[in-house]
Amino acid sequence: MRAVDIIMKKRSGQALADEEIGFMIDGYVDGGIPEYQISALLMAIYFKGMTAAETAALTSSMLGSGEVMDLSGIPGPFVDKHSTGGVGDKISLPLAPIVAACGARVPMMSGRALGHTGGTLDKLESIPGYRTDLDLAGFRSGILADGFAMTGQTARVVPADKKLYALRDVTATVESVPLITASILSKKVAEGADALVFDVKSGPGAFMKTFEEARALAASLVRTGTAMGKRIVAVITDMSEPLGRTVGNFFEIEETLDCLEGRGPADVMELVERLGAWMLVASGITDSVKSGEALCRKALSSGKALDLFLANVARQGGDLARLASLRGRYRSGYATELRATESGYIASIDAWKIGLAGVLLGVGRSTTGDAVSPDVGFIFERKKGDPVAKGDLVARIWGKDEACLEPASKLASDALLISGHAPAPSRLVLEELAAS
Amino acid sequence: MRAVDIIMKKRSGQALADEEIGFMIDGYVDGGIPEYQISALLMAIYFKGMTAAETAALTSSMLGSGEVMDLSGIPGPFVDKHSTGGVGDKISLPLAPIVAACGARVPMMSGRALGHTGGTLDKLESIPGYRTDLDLAGFRSGILADGFAMTGQTARVVPADKKLYALRDVTATVESVPLITASILSKKVAEGADALVFDVKSGPGAFMKTFEEARALAASLVRTGTAMGKRIVAVITDMSEPLGRTVGNFFEIEETLDCLEGRGPADVMELVERLGAWMLVASGITDSVKSGEALCRKALSSGKALDLFLANVARQGGDLARLASLRGRYRSGYATELRATESGYIASIDAWKIGLAGVLLGVGRSTTGDAVSPDVGFIFERKKGDPVAKGDLVARIWGKDEACLEPASKLASDALLISGHAPAPSRLVLEELAAS
Repeated sequence: MRAVDIIMKKRSGQALADEEIGFMIDGYVDGGIPEYQISALLMAIYFKGMTAAETAALTSSMLGSGEVMDLSGIPGPFVDKHSTGGVGDKISLPLAPIVAACGARVPMMSGRALGHTGGTLDKLESIPGYRTDLDLAGFRSGILADGFAMTGQTARVVPADKKLYALRDVTATVESVPLITASILSKKVAEGADALVFDVKSGPGAFMKTFEEARALAASLVRTGTAMGKRIVAVITDMSEPLGRTVGNFFEIEETLDCLEGRGPADVMELVERLGAWMLVASGITDSVKSGEALCRKALSSGKALDLFLANVARQGGDLARLASLRGRYRSGYATELRATESGYIASIDAWKIGLAGVLLGVGRSTTGDAVSPDVGFIFERKKGDPVAKGDLVARIWGKDEACLEPASKLASDALLISGHAPAPSRLVLEELAAS
Repeated sequence: MRAVDIIMKKRSGQALADEEIGFMIDGYVDGGIPEYQISALLMAIYFKGMTAAETAALTSSMLGSGEVMDLSGIPGPFVDKHSTGGVGDKISLPLAPIVAACGARVPMMSGRALGHTGGTLDKLESIPGYRTDLDLAGFRSGILADGFAMTGQTARVVPADKKLYALRDVTATVESVPLITASILSKKVAEGADALVFDVKSGPGAFMKTFEEARALAASLVRTGTAMGKRIVAVITDMSEPLGRTVGNFFEIEETLDCLEGRGPADVMELVERLGAWMLVASGITDSVKSGEALCRKALSSGKALDLFLANVARQGGDLARLASLRGRYRSGYATELRATESGYIASIDAWKIGLAGVLLGVGRSTTGDAVSPDVGFIFERKKGDPVAKGDLVARIWGKDEACLEPASKLASDALLISGHAPAPSRLVLEELAAS
């Protein structure tokens, strides 16, 4: 087998055999195949795509490059959710304890903020003491005790993805549906979940800017994950507006508590219940989305989900007393406000620009090594569709220093569109795909 | 400027600016841009192509990576011919002295056999003593004295092409019209010629297998070379059958002498006169192909072209006495024959298979380092269209050793197609393109 022949086969639009894909990935990871051949293959895949079978083989090869989480001995079913990344997307935080409260196990491995999107690990670490670097024993004991645990991925999980992603990033081969699919799926399958629900974001604040792109990725995730023997659901949701009232690490922990107390913003509550319901369906706990939603609401109203969340915080080293005392008060010393410059209705708040402003404020990071701040970001007082009078407060803004406030405010002003007419109501859940 | 942005721009089908192309090529040659970014760009170019302006910029950047031949002080006009490679293609050998005899100067830099195609340098070196590694002074003095000189390209001519070609070879990005164009043109422009005639071969024995591919390359060579201020003609010629009666290094020198003595095979004479005529038109010596052909015939009938060829052989170290004594007798000790296995007409002799058989015999080489033999190859007694009776001799075959004869004969048998009907006459010159 020669790498050049495999590249040529893909270049000509033919489907690669499992062994050919394995040969390339194994050779890349062990250094036998040089990066210039891998990048040429990646570009050929960008143009010619991959079938579901090829994408499954790629995912399996990548998965095989590292460790798979050992959940043996813990009773399932294991289910997880993955979001393709958005602004104000704190859904994972209330979702895990809700689904755990309903009897599923959630082995959740999350990522960090990058670019305009936030990261679950950064949000959790804004709770003083909270640790996201669990070892296998800690991860297993959390899942056994509370039904879920939250951790970052170690370097030993899918090392092929780390190498491939770094190469794609510098060779303009990031935006390829099969490559994105294999990157996402390999990491999620490595967690040990049997069932996976994907929240594929669509819109200006998402990685997939158009609905068509989001649907292509959603369909690929369902097809490929199913080909790998997993139960997969993909929910395409709108990411035009920031989700909820808060964008910021600790601010989103506060909103998580609001949600678990049954009084979160309507969009967050809707999405948590819908995704939670699909997780319960995919894991076989219930057989309809409707009954799943009812179970999620019960987990909230009974207080069980909130209890599990707090138990997890304590188990992973978080200081519950400080969490309670900081709530509503953990704000940086550098603040400003976003006010309406005219009267009318809020027609839209551009999630992309708010996300970029968040990076300036210290919510997120532009490059992997940057630090983030817990006590900065946006708290929106008004959202899309709300009437405003000129001068009304739209959002409070906190930044990591004085200097960042002006450019971030400028971006936020640009993000805010006020119109004389109320905007047409928009849907949050755009489409739902499950394996037939 | 960032390499990844340039790759993405090409990936999305946009034309690159001259500076962007220069940035990539300069960075590649000086090591600042890694090979994995270059190979991704090459694959994007494979899929998205390049405009004539981009291809000209690429050619210029590659040209700028090395030395350009200094012909200053020698009166022109300078014109050269380049063939994309074929089987039995000895046209350059009689062509250079013919065109020189008509008053043009031919600074000819040639290549070696690779794969199924032969190489002019290997043919010349089959003349005992002939040297193809001229220094600049030797090259200049040959052109001044005889109107032409024949040499190989030094490592200092277009080093970017050497690096790029090696990378394309292992990343399945060889078959790209703009990349082939820039590779060919950069080397030819580096010779210092003002006018260039390209013999773009089309058919099973050519690099471009179909007429459409050949026409795309021919058009690109004309467009790009013209954009670089050169006078360019491209002649698309058939390479279904081996050209002439001989395939072999010294065998083709013999056929060159036949041709210069006015008694070469019809196809060789036709192509030499046609390409020679275009070279005289492109260099401004005459204004019509018809008068150019007449000039070429006169150069042959007067004996002037033959004299110049022999003068060049002597000047470049070749032993004229041995050339004369070896003629018709320089044959290896390992011989066999190809005979007709049935009666009828020769419908075709597949140039591709004959070329591959030639590699086995020792005419050519599969990898750059292999040695070739002077006294091996094919001498055809019958060609396409000739009637044959079962058992008739079609070709004599000589090999470098006993072992190669059987597999080479087998390939040659496969190449020979005999039919009950005479084949329709075919054209050698398929299309001619000149800048309008």
